[in-house]
Amino acid sequence: MKKQQTSESAKNLEKMLAVSPYNQLALSGVGPIKDVKIFDTTLRDGEQAPGIALSREDKVRIAIALDDLGVDILEGGFAASGEGEKEILTKLMKSDLDAKVCSLARCVISDIDAVLSTGVGMVHTFIATSDLHMQYKLKMTPEQVKEKAVEIVEYAKAHGLEVQFSCEDATRSDLNFMKDVLKGVQEAGVDSINIPDTVGVITPRAMGYLIGELKKTVKVPLSVHCHNDMGLAVANSIAAIDAGATICHVCMNGIGERTGNAALEEVAVNLFANYGIQTVDMSKIGPTSKLVERITGFNLAGNKPIVGRNAFAHESGIHVHGVMANSLTYEPFKPEMVGENRAIVIGKHSGAHSIQGRLDALGIAFPEEHLPDLLSTIKKIAIGGKMIDDAELLVIVDNLLWKRNTKGTMVTLDELTVLTGKNTTSTAVVTVTIAGSGKRTAAETGVGPVDAAINAIKKAINDKLTMEEYKLSAITGKSDSICEVTVMVKNVQNDGALAVGKAVGLDIVETSVDAMMCAINRDFARQRNA
Amino acid sequence: MKKQQTSESAKNLEKMLAVSPYNQLALSGVGPIKDVKIFDTTLRDGEQAPGIALSREDKVRIAIALDDLGVDILEGGFAASGEGEKEILTKLMKSDLDAKVCSLARCVISDIDAVLSTGVGMVHTFIATSDLHMQYKLKMTPEQVKEKAVEIVEYAKAHGLEVQFSCEDATRSDLNFMKDVLKGVQEAGVDSINIPDTVGVITPRAMGYLIGELKKTVKVPLSVHCHNDMGLAVANSIAAIDAGATICHVCMNGIGERTGNAALEEVAVNLFANYGIQTVDMSKIGPTSKLVERITGFNLAGNKPIVGRNAFAHESGIHVHGVMANSLTYEPFKPEMVGENRAIVIGKHSGAHSIQGRLDALGIAFPEEHLPDLLSTIKKIAIGGKMIDDAELLVIVDNLLWKRNTKGTMVTLDELTVLTGKNTTSTAVVTVTIAGSGKRTAAETGVGPVDAAINAIKKAINDKLTMEEYKLSAITGKSDSICEVTVMVKNVQNDGALAVGKAVGLDIVETSVDAMMCAINRDFARQRNA
Repeated sequence: MKKQQTSESAKNLEKMLAVSPYNQLALSGVGPIKDVKIFDTTLRDGEQAPGIALSREDKVRIAIALDDLGVDILEGGFAASGEGEKEILTKLMKSDLDAKVCSLARCVISDIDAVLSTGVGMVHTFIATSDLHMQYKLKMTPEQVKEKAVEIVEYAKAHGLEVQFSCEDATRSDLNFMKDVLKGVQEAGVDSINIPDTVGVITPRAMGYLIGELKKTVKVPLSVHCHNDMGLAVANSIAAIDAGATICHVCMNGIGERTGNAALEEVAVNLFANYGIQTVDMSKIGPTSKLVERITGFNLAGNKPIVGRNAFAHESGIHVHGVMANSLTYEPFKPEMVGENRAIVIGKHSGAHSIQGRLDALGIAFPEEHLPDLLSTIKKIAIGGKMIDDAELLVIVDNLLWKRNTKGTMVTLDELTVLTGKNTTSTAVVTVTIAGSGKRTAAETGVGPVDAAINAIKKAINDKLTMEEYKLSAITGKSDSICEVTVMVKNVQNDGALAVGKAVGLDIVETSVDAMMCAINRDFARQRNA
Repeated sequence: MKKQQTSESAKNLEKMLAVSPYNQLALSGVGPIKDVKIFDTTLRDGEQAPGIALSREDKVRIAIALDDLGVDILEGGFAASGEGEKEILTKLMKSDLDAKVCSLARCVISDIDAVLSTGVGMVHTFIATSDLHMQYKLKMTPEQVKEKAVEIVEYAKAHGLEVQFSCEDATRSDLNFMKDVLKGVQEAGVDSINIPDTVGVITPRAMGYLIGELKKTVKVPLSVHCHNDMGLAVANSIAAIDAGATICHVCMNGIGERTGNAALEEVAVNLFANYGIQTVDMSKIGPTSKLVERITGFNLAGNKPIVGRNAFAHESGIHVHGVMANSLTYEPFKPEMVGENRAIVIGKHSGAHSIQGRLDALGIAFPEEHLPDLLSTIKKIAIGGKMIDDAELLVIVDNLLWKRNTKGTMVTLDELTVLTGKNTTSTAVVTVTIAGSGKRTAAETGVGPVDAAINAIKKAINDKLTMEEYKLSAITGKSDSICEVTVMVKNVQNDGALAVGKAVGLDIVETSVDAMMCAINRDFARQRNA
């Protein structure tokens, strides 16, 4: 699948991308970089992120998505950490994946035995080689560490496993000692060697230097594993690849211990855009990222590169104008390349272009001559520090076009009583006055007091309104805290027109009813003015 | 202030940091990097991020914090974009800041006039030099662009402004054309020249190459402005500094157009940790980041380097164990260095060390012999994909120690009726049976039906309970959606012991009451068992 897309992409590359011509120029001294294998550790280092815990089903779903994306190796877990983890690894082995499944293991015989019991064919075993880790954590001498590393690689190889060996905390380890250990594990038959920047402390230039030095000793494929503590994980990964590493550890969405690992999506896009190497199916990056975000519950920042909600979002006038002329003026590549979409956002920095585009998308035929009015209203609201979402844009449009005010209120709520409780069917009785039609009273039940009250109001006004959205927010703290309610109703008789109402108050029932009455009046006002 | 901290930090540096020895080694070929000026554009490019809009008061508060942090130049806004923006810039000029205040301006005479009208002493003026921007956005020839740039720099200088000039989209611009433009603006008296990677398309290696080339022509200080579209903004900034740039554009929290600008905190920590250059007051980084997050409403990712909630958080057994022995084993530097704190999180990957630490912090004297039981219970819950917060840990501890079950329920709710409505004082009447004390009935009012019901229950059980927390979540969608309520009550008679109750249901009043009854029963059970 990857190869097919490569030829397809080659054709479209020029249209999709506009990267820097200096990238290729600067690579002139670097040997040809041909192929990079993606070693995905979303399910192991990624899952170790504080706050993430995946069930067996979660892990299998993510593994299938990552396999479909096209990663080469899947580190599915840490067999020795418990029965649950072993079951997951066994399950992954039976999931018919194209990717190679791998387990983490310390340099301990019982950890290798745990891996063997799962049926997984590859182990990633590690032991720390920095003075700091050997002294404080392992409480072992360098000689003991080397001996242990060699013993475990020999044991794992003797039991038929493919072995990747990591010098944990390599970037703070002594170069000569590391070379000595790596010579030993090479003699023991190791298949690949990984250099982890365990706490994210190296710079790209230094990573290039370190990999270059290690290449003098290491004859098996070199791998790199970078953490993002100082924001350099992706740059360090790329620098290692520049210097000859051919395997790259990554996590989807850059999750992982602390500030996470090099983000799969950022490494893949860099290799694709700047080196012409396609490691995964590019168009599946966006959807896979969203799946991982949903399952892990670990939310992406709005400004997350490649996959954040702002990665292809534009608000300021100059940028929106440029993007409308040619999207590559303010985008490095088209969002479709990675399965994402462009967004034009309405706010303080918006110009008329953006607002017209948003109204068109919402299907609102807004008279062009009122556009400057709308723009200045939006700027006035937004200058207070506010971004305008679709529901709010609708309210502003309503107010501008139909000038709703108290005098124009067509439906007033005269009376509302709600009875609710434990083992009681919530019941509401309501009396409203509709301008020109007089008073109407109605009673209705609901699953709770809010539902009952809203049902009674709908019945009283005898209108074909459906509630499209009910949003309650800011209830935290005590039971008497303030709440904000937004409702969006659709009038199925009036071309499905939408009307939004908002209210803020202490009482959840009263505030919900106020928001509903606000929406109803907007809807009535629109019908009258239509 | 910055200088003072430098000597102080020099003393503590060794204790605070454990970075890679390779960083200095790799710099051996690079000339000495002495001083870097921080050009902060949080209030301009940062504010242009979709979803961010700052009021005048917001901008002044952030400016004061950034000034206090120690940035050198503050780009406060874009004077020509409106009256509001001009007022902000004037206000910043009058705010007695140590930092130089600067305004953005296009290469247009009226933009420079707008800057002059604010009293600001520095302008950052830009015009695009890439073919893509000149053709599609500016619709100007290269000759026209050069002419415009020179004209505007001359005009701004003639009017007494300090001028920084940017070749917009420099990293996609022709090198010879850029050199030609830069020669022109230098002859016109420009004070500094900025090289923006406008859409984040360059690599660190290529940035080094580009800056090195431009240094051959540019004799005034060089500045760099990097965007993070491919995750390389910080690495590219550092690469530019390596190659001779001495001014660095940044935004706090890495906000800015699309995926944002180079993050101030990441650039500052890299320069400090890896180059020994202190640009800002390090210990104010964390608090300033939080202020900007709160005011902009732009949430940091959990894994945001330096300032994210996970940057110094540890959950997995191996890491917690290492950190407890010596925190530098799994942290690049101590969180205090940047005004942050360490967190030990309880979840699936936790060991006994973490849980004991958490219980201690909560002030719970938990019998050590039950710790293995607690650990296995937590693992069982967490394997389903759950992180355990303090409230949940309390529930688990309660259940383990006091084995609450239905038979043991001491307080049952027999009857609850609530009357509420519009212009009605919410009133609840409740009857409970307390084992051993018989039935009790009480009526109470509240600001809404939930508050009334909870007040009535508190009165009926005649107990000294205060509600410490009321959390309502997952109400979205329709008015009949499911809600989850968590309450935490404190018994002021019983040594201030905390009890947590949780309930899920359709009716907000009934669910809140269920959660309250759950907490009350836990509290009663504890009193009985105490």
